[in-house]
Amino acid sequence: MTTTLPPSLLATLPGTAYTDPAVFAHEQELIFERMWFCAVRASDVADAGDFRTVTVGRESVIVVRGHDGAVNAFFNVCRHRGARVCTEEAGSVKRTLRCQYHAWSYDLDGRLVAAPNLVHMPDIDRVAFGLRPAHTREWLGYVWVCVADEPPSFSDDVVGAVVTRLGDVASIDRYALQDLAVGAHIRYDVRANWKLIIENFMECYHCSTIHPELVSVLPEFAKGYAAQYFVGHGAEFGPRIEGFTVDGSPGHGTIPTLAPEQDRRYYAVTVRPNLFINLVPDHAILMRMTPLAADRTIVECDWLFQPHIVAQGRDLTASVELFDRVNRQDFDACELCQPAMSSRAYAGGGVLVPSEHHLADFHAWLSARLSPTSPAHD
Amino acid sequence: MTTTLPPSLLATLPGTAYTDPAVFAHEQELIFERMWFCAVRASDVADAGDFRTVTVGRESVIVVRGHDGAVNAFFNVCRHRGARVCTEEAGSVKRTLRCQYHAWSYDLDGRLVAAPNLVHMPDIDRVAFGLRPAHTREWLGYVWVCVADEPPSFSDDVVGAVVTRLGDVASIDRYALQDLAVGAHIRYDVRANWKLIIENFMECYHCSTIHPELVSVLPEFAKGYAAQYFVGHGAEFGPRIEGFTVDGSPGHGTIPTLAPEQDRRYYAVTVRPNLFINLVPDHAILMRMTPLAADRTIVECDWLFQPHIVAQGRDLTASVELFDRVNRQDFDACELCQPAMSSRAYAGGGVLVPSEHHLADFHAWLSARLSPTSPAHD
Amino acid sequence: MTTTLPPSLLATLPGTAYTDPAVFAHEQELIFERMWFCAVRASDVADAGDFRTVTVGRESVIVVRGHDGAVNAFFNVCRHRGARVCTEEAGSVKRTLRCQYHAWSYDLDGRLVAAPNLVHMPDIDRVAFGLRPAHTREWLGYVWVCVADEPPSFSDDVVGAVVTRLGDVASIDRYALQDLAVGAHIRYDVRANWKLIIENFMECYHCSTIHPELVSVLPEFAKGYAAQYFVGHGAEFGPRIEGFTVDGSPGHGTIPTLAPEQDRRYYAVTVRPNLFINLVPDHAILMRMTPLAADRTIVECDWLFQPHIVAQGRDLTASVELFDRVNRQDFDACELCQPAMSSRAYAGGGVLVPSEHHLADFHAWLSARLSPTSPAHD
Repeated sequence: MTTTLPPSLLATLPGTAYTDPAVFAHEQELIFERMWFCAVRASDVADAGDFRTVTVGRESVIVVRGHDGAVNAFFNVCRHRGARVCTEEAGSVKRTLRCQYHAWSYDLDGRLVAAPNLVHMPDIDRVAFGLRPAHTREWLGYVWVCVADEPPSFSDDVVGAVVTRLGDVASIDRYALQDLAVGAHIRYDVRANWKLIIENFMECYHCSTIHPELVSVLPEFAKGYAAQYFVGHGAEFGPRIEGFTVDGSPGHGTIPTLAPEQDRRYYAVTVRPNLFINLVPDHAILMRMTPLAADRTIVECDWLFQPHIVAQGRDLTASVELFDRVNRQDFDACELCQPAMSSRAYAGGGVLVPSEHHLADFHAWLSARLSPTSPAHD
Repeated sequence: MTTTLPPSLLATLPGTAYTDPAVFAHEQELIFERMWFCAVRASDVADAGDFRTVTVGRESVIVVRGHDGAVNAFFNVCRHRGARVCTEEAGSVKRTLRCQYHAWSYDLDGRLVAAPNLVHMPDIDRVAFGLRPAHTREWLGYVWVCVADEPPSFSDDVVGAVVTRLGDVASIDRYALQDLAVGAHIRYDVRANWKLIIENFMECYHCSTIHPELVSVLPEFAKGYAAQYFVGHGAEFGPRIEGFTVDGSPGHGTIPTLAPEQDRRYYAVTVRPNLFINLVPDHAILMRMTPLAADRTIVECDWLFQPHIVAQGRDLTASVELFDRVNRQDFDACELCQPAMSSRAYAGGGVLVPSEHHLADFHAWLSARLSPTSPAHD
Repeated sequence: MTTTLPPSLLATLPGTAYTDPAVFAHEQELIFERMWFCAVRASDVADAGDFRTVTVGRESVIVVRGHDGAVNAFFNVCRHRGARVCTEEAGSVKRTLRCQYHAWSYDLDGRLVAAPNLVHMPDIDRVAFGLRPAHTREWLGYVWVCVADEPPSFSDDVVGAVVTRLGDVASIDRYALQDLAVGAHIRYDVRANWKLIIENFMECYHCSTIHPELVSVLPEFAKGYAAQYFVGHGAEFGPRIEGFTVDGSPGHGTIPTLAPEQDRRYYAVTVRPNLFINLVPDHAILMRMTPLAADRTIVECDWLFQPHIVAQGRDLTASVELFDRVNRQDFDACELCQPAMSSRAYAGGGVLVPSEHHLADFHAWLSARLSPTSPAHD
């Protein structure tokens, strides 16, 4: 590795950042188990008793809608002997979450309400021995979970990330994401570190090489500068493009509350640590990452459309196929990088060209989060 | 985790005891490679030259019947260059155990008796360069192996465990286990720590939840107290129960040497570290555990009946199915617990209700075995 | 383990040398990534632009023929963001090796020749940011690669190994290995440590036990002494043997440049760390090892014949089958040893009989290479 770089180039992280299990464990502890984590689509737990089990950092968490309409989250660990309480990824219960081992049963607020012989153990506090809670918030039609004892500011970390990118919160509110319906969902199992996926999402220097369909819709991407490079900027559709579709054919109208300057534009937002937001005039594409190992990440991608579009059973193929192709092209590229991260030729890392220089902000943020003097270490 | 527990509750082990590879390696070294390990049914090596290869702790061991009728055990490692001598799980040889690599051959007492050019190497001591022996004992129709240099007292550790539970040795002798025949054998591959399996076997607080068939045969189990909770106690069959079968239908007579108070009773005994004994009037169910990893344990279960019952080809289905169901119900429960052992919500462990308080004895025993000042550390 | 051995016996390495991942990592660093590694058959990259990707130590390396006819080798890591540049095991390019992620393109000398926006980054040195090179040499029709910064002497380490075994370099030159053609190629995936494979190749004490076909062709092997035991010695064909074939039937003539004393003889040479050479009158068998883990090694075996023999499509089955059987017999034996290497019964290692005593040289060499005061540690 050259030790001094010419002005055109900035350094990336060293290769071990993407392969070392100890670094990954640190990231789980100090990032994914400390920050707000975008966990499920709120409509996936629409009614009281509906639940999902999700992986947050290294924890299994139950996200369940309560009888009061609020969403609760609990560590998926019975307080008695530690069995998983919910063993399915999704389901619905009437009144209680019941452990299958010894039948300890918890209400939707986590309180212990029944167990064999419980009446003979009056000294057991029903809340102290209830399910251990995690923090929750709903925004944009998603449920965020934080498994830390003290959650960071949702307004600073989550809303702030969107504002920093788009300029104001009104810009995203106009898409009314909480009112859109899920038109398609695809789960990708990516054999690459989660940071390679973020870095890939943040830059467009690769667009001309691997994304012919996307560049055809958004010609400015051929120049290599991502929309995320500039605050508030949305990439403009090409002159003959009628919609954000794989062939440029028309989409499904325009979300009526958009501002005129948001039409015929594509916006991308990264909300650390695990959410990507893509906004186009007639739909939105939201991607949640779940890191499972230093070299493996699950990505859940939702395509959201206006409810009547989904209800009418419209053919969404041309819309969904565009970003599904983009995703596969991107994840293939990340998987090309992962095995080389352990090479001595990458021990000092690689380089960022000018249109990638903003990735250095992500690296600085990471370094601060993982530093021993960071407030994340409490 | 609450730091002070109400009187109803005692603490379990912390979660890491079930997941940490270093703890597991310690258990292998200080428990399974130091104690008497119930290895094979004696009738599986009935005749001279019959052998079985078994895993004891982290060692492969050959158990072979000698020409004098005694059972010998050897490390399954050729003294020359270390090849496995026996590569099959079971087999029979005429006179020698012969290594397939360089044909070093050992008699059934482990003595080196032949090798290419051996006559030109007269300075090789045939015993010193014989197979390395392990200690063996036969009891209850099983062969126990100890791979430690100095075995602990068989009488204290193995016979003593039975006496402590049943009150005297005569109580088990009356079942004449050494004379029974294997009517059925099932091997279970359980994705859980061996200690979860022991804890499960020792308590009956889960019986009413997961064992409907067993509780139907032994109604007192519905109260949550295991037979093992009381010295000498056997759980009584329900009034309309005719045998220890999946539907309460009659079994296959009564072992004639039983005492009257042993009829219509179920007794369970845990012989640490790896044997469970279940005694009912007409048969016995013996289960040997082989831990393979912190999260994986093999369980071999034998159903033993009077020899004429097996010889006559009687239908044993109703008898075997009862405990096969119990086993599957139990192992499913253990597998529910294993993944949650690494949660921060279980870092301080779980709790034991009053009918589980006797599990604390097992935890105290474990802690003593693994302590650096234990006599197990020699 | 006995602490003092009788004169007939020498000690082997201890068992951990074959199982410990830390030892294996040291071997990768200090042996496979420091020494000359026999990588590919030169004819596999015959023309300009032909490439192979090979694993050298823990590195993926591109071996490619340049326009000047010389072979170059490069770390298979894009200098930009670390993607694998060549993703296929073998292929051919016209002018450049092009990364699939951002289209950085390198000529066959490794120089950066094209990239999106590269003209706007004139401060990027095309050589400094070219592919990182590795050292190469061609000999005997093979390409050797060294990924160390400073390669050791090829003449001492590689040519020297052949001379030490055969007595002079002329002895191997007479086989004209660089002019022979590949008549057959088999890849073996061996679940054993690479040192077990070397030790097996170096001794013939096992020949009478596991190699009936080989001993039938080379009767002196029945005595247990390998050809490699004596400098310059070749094992002689049995009196009724007409060729080095599975049934002793005639082979395919004699390489015309051989000396008379090389006819009807088999020679074996070990070139550390990864090449085995077998020489017989009408062909040669060259085997390259690639260690992947402490318990896994890939072996690539080439059968080389005079070009006209291959060109005429002669039936090579009887020739190929002999050593293919020998290989499978050997690798089965190595796989028998691997699992016992972790036994406490092998903690102190095994023993070498007189006909294996020369293996102690290999062990002394290993020990010197891995010692902290070795010149390999620079």
